[in-house]
Amino acid sequence: MSANKSQATYRLFDDKADFAKKAEGIAVGLTVGSWTELPEVAKQKMEKHLGRVVSVEAHEPEGAAPGERYADITVEYPDVNFSRDIPALLVTVFGKLSMDGRIKLTGLKPSAEFLSAFPGPKLGLAGVRDYLGVQDRPLLMSIFKSVIGYDLNGLREQFLQQALGGVDLIKDDEILFENPLTPLERRVEACMSAAREAENITGQKLIYFANLTGPTSKLRENALRAIDAGVNGLLFNVLAYGFDALAELAADPAISVPIAAHPAMAGAYYPSPHHGISASVLLGTLIRIAGADLSLFPSPYGSVVMPKAENLAVQDALVNAELPQKAVLPVPSAGIHPGLVPLIVHDFGRDVVVNAGGGVHGHPLGAAAGGQAFRQAIDAVLAGEDLEAYASAGGDREPLKLAVERWGVRRP
Amino acid sequence: MSANKSQATYRLFDDKADFAKKAEGIAVGLTVGSWTELPEVAKQKMEKHLGRVVSVEAHEPEGAAPGERYADITVEYPDVNFSRDIPALLVTVFGKLSMDGRIKLTGLKPSAEFLSAFPGPKLGLAGVRDYLGVQDRPLLMSIFKSVIGYDLNGLREQFLQQALGGVDLIKDDEILFENPLTPLERRVEACMSAAREAENITGQKLIYFANLTGPTSKLRENALRAIDAGVNGLLFNVLAYGFDALAELAADPAISVPIAAHPAMAGAYYPSPHHGISASVLLGTLIRIAGADLSLFPSPYGSVVMPKAENLAVQDALVNAELPQKAVLPVPSAGIHPGLVPLIVHDFGRDVVVNAGGGVHGHPLGAAAGGQAFRQAIDAVLAGEDLEAYASAGGDREPLKLAVERWGVRRP
Repeated sequence: MSANKSQATYRLFDDKADFAKKAEGIAVGLTVGSWTELPEVAKQKMEKHLGRVVSVEAHEPEGAAPGERYADITVEYPDVNFSRDIPALLVTVFGKLSMDGRIKLTGLKPSAEFLSAFPGPKLGLAGVRDYLGVQDRPLLMSIFKSVIGYDLNGLREQFLQQALGGVDLIKDDEILFENPLTPLERRVEACMSAAREAENITGQKLIYFANLTGPTSKLRENALRAIDAGVNGLLFNVLAYGFDALAELAADPAISVPIAAHPAMAGAYYPSPHHGISASVLLGTLIRIAGADLSLFPSPYGSVVMPKAENLAVQDALVNAELPQKAVLPVPSAGIHPGLVPLIVHDFGRDVVVNAGGGVHGHPLGAAAGGQAFRQAIDAVLAGEDLEAYASAGGDREPLKLAVERWGVRRP
Repeated sequence: MSANKSQATYRLFDDKADFAKKAEGIAVGLTVGSWTELPEVAKQKMEKHLGRVVSVEAHEPEGAAPGERYADITVEYPDVNFSRDIPALLVTVFGKLSMDGRIKLTGLKPSAEFLSAFPGPKLGLAGVRDYLGVQDRPLLMSIFKSVIGYDLNGLREQFLQQALGGVDLIKDDEILFENPLTPLERRVEACMSAAREAENITGQKLIYFANLTGPTSKLRENALRAIDAGVNGLLFNVLAYGFDALAELAADPAISVPIAAHPAMAGAYYPSPHHGISASVLLGTLIRIAGADLSLFPSPYGSVVMPKAENLAVQDALVNAELPQKAVLPVPSAGIHPGLVPLIVHDFGRDVVVNAGGGVHGHPLGAAAGGQAFRQAIDAVLAGEDLEAYASAGGDREPLKLAVERWGVRRP
């Protein structure tokens, strides 16, 4: 791949199409518009703008039923055609094309030159670990049980209970907006004071991700208000605002705290096999380039599910893919309980955030014990011990024991 | 519907689910989180935040094949739960929920109170007509044949030829970004001087929609630069930036020109029956609330297609739906030639923009004749005459005659 050409891969379903011709139509149609009929002198001028078909892999099994025939098509787009921002890239490679039949954007490899415009995550996976002083184990995140209708005291108490359980990260609900009961700055003050109270007891640092909301033009100001009030993390509904809004926040030197990207609305894009944008592009590649430090996505384990192969493709884009941007912490979410920790670590390794809501708050002894159960589950898995045996070994392991009794254990 | 409750309608496919229970789960889960287990005193406090199921219409035909069973579910969300911006509304009604099974957002009725925060289109359908001085016929828009790799002279010449054909509106390609060959201000100057040159000949006003691009935080500044340079319209890839970016531009008193919303990336949302957001919500309701003056979408007639029923649902949301925001001009696009005008007027009436690219530039006598052919087709249809008969009546009708010979006529 050239340093100044960006690649996009599509899966195109069509029962009859000549896929090679379709691919050529994309490469020409989304760049110079027409080619073969151009006079030679025009071709010389236009050549540097012309898209190029990199590969066409047709899948046409014998006796394929209608709807099963497809091709994976990769096209290369000269960077000279678009500006160094994600809207320009996406509109170029999947603007008009998104509406042209049964076609899904399944891969995106921006050029080195394009990528060089994006500083990416400020902290990233390693930086968040450094900040917390936790290098050797999966991180533990918890979310509030309920936020709407709660006042500052109610929210603070929930925060404190979670923090006392030894979680590393606590995030707002993505549906908590600016409101009179828990306005941003007062919420930050209340929650960060609970974080300090817990730290005095647990000796453990904690990041609180406050939901960054409001009009697009006020996001920066709201972020700075929250930071001034003491917050050390921001949650952001990136898909509701566009990737460029995230990229601008992440690139802003004044916004010094890690950003957790929430996948709200992502299900409007990734689940269909025939349309939209793959989760690995949406919640992996683009999130990392735009510069979130954590990326949340539906786990393959719980109630809101994404197939495991897709989860691992997201992880790959966030952590392993060769990109100049720092690696991003993957946060497979929804339906997580302590009995799933062996599976999570088996699938994701240690560089993962175990993120729980009901699995913390639903603990028979309350949220603090819920967090402790998760921490014990993590300890057990890293020690290579069986979760149930570890839980039953007595001592202070009652939280894990009760969690395992309640939710069971799923082994890899 | 209460004045301060907003409704969302979903189509949920599930072979087994208890749809009433699912609906209740949505209404509670996306608002207060839990309900039945709450103590009475908490219920009293939480009641004003609680979502409510408005209706559940299950479609369970006897002997339904797997995948065919679905329900249309409408849920009402108290406005007190979210702020008065589109990201907050969308994250509330289709954030997490978008990822929860086979579910599509098919309808959206924000409350009167929510809607009151959005001034909507500045000009709208009637205002654009007033500006152009054209009240009685469909408007005609044309797009450049090709923009990438062209310099200012090349673009100006294309613009002039289109303008000489009598088109009302000319728009940039959505993939024309800031670039050294045709930078925004110089492009505006070149095209607007061509517009004046044409107006001296045709006596006709024209709006040029320059593509508004760049980083989100620079959109306002870029819009003002283009306006200062003389532009009288802006094209905007709203889905790449989010609806709030459009809403802020539209609400800005300094941005005095009409905005045409381009549907780039819309195909990532609307075509799947099982996932995403319906075109009528995405390119209809939300575009109108956010305040574009024109909304482009794939026509049911040409190469890039959207079914006609969906087209008409978009039109209905843009023009007929009872909303405080002004009506928006529908622009069914792609594959349009003069022979389709009878069909377009039959389906959309007169309040429509006939938008053509190849149908203008591919005319045997060139782009000016291409525009003239469209204008003649519009005249014929409004006079109630048959297109072929009208075209063959001699005089100055050669442009339409040649167009009809080339592309044929499709009658309603």
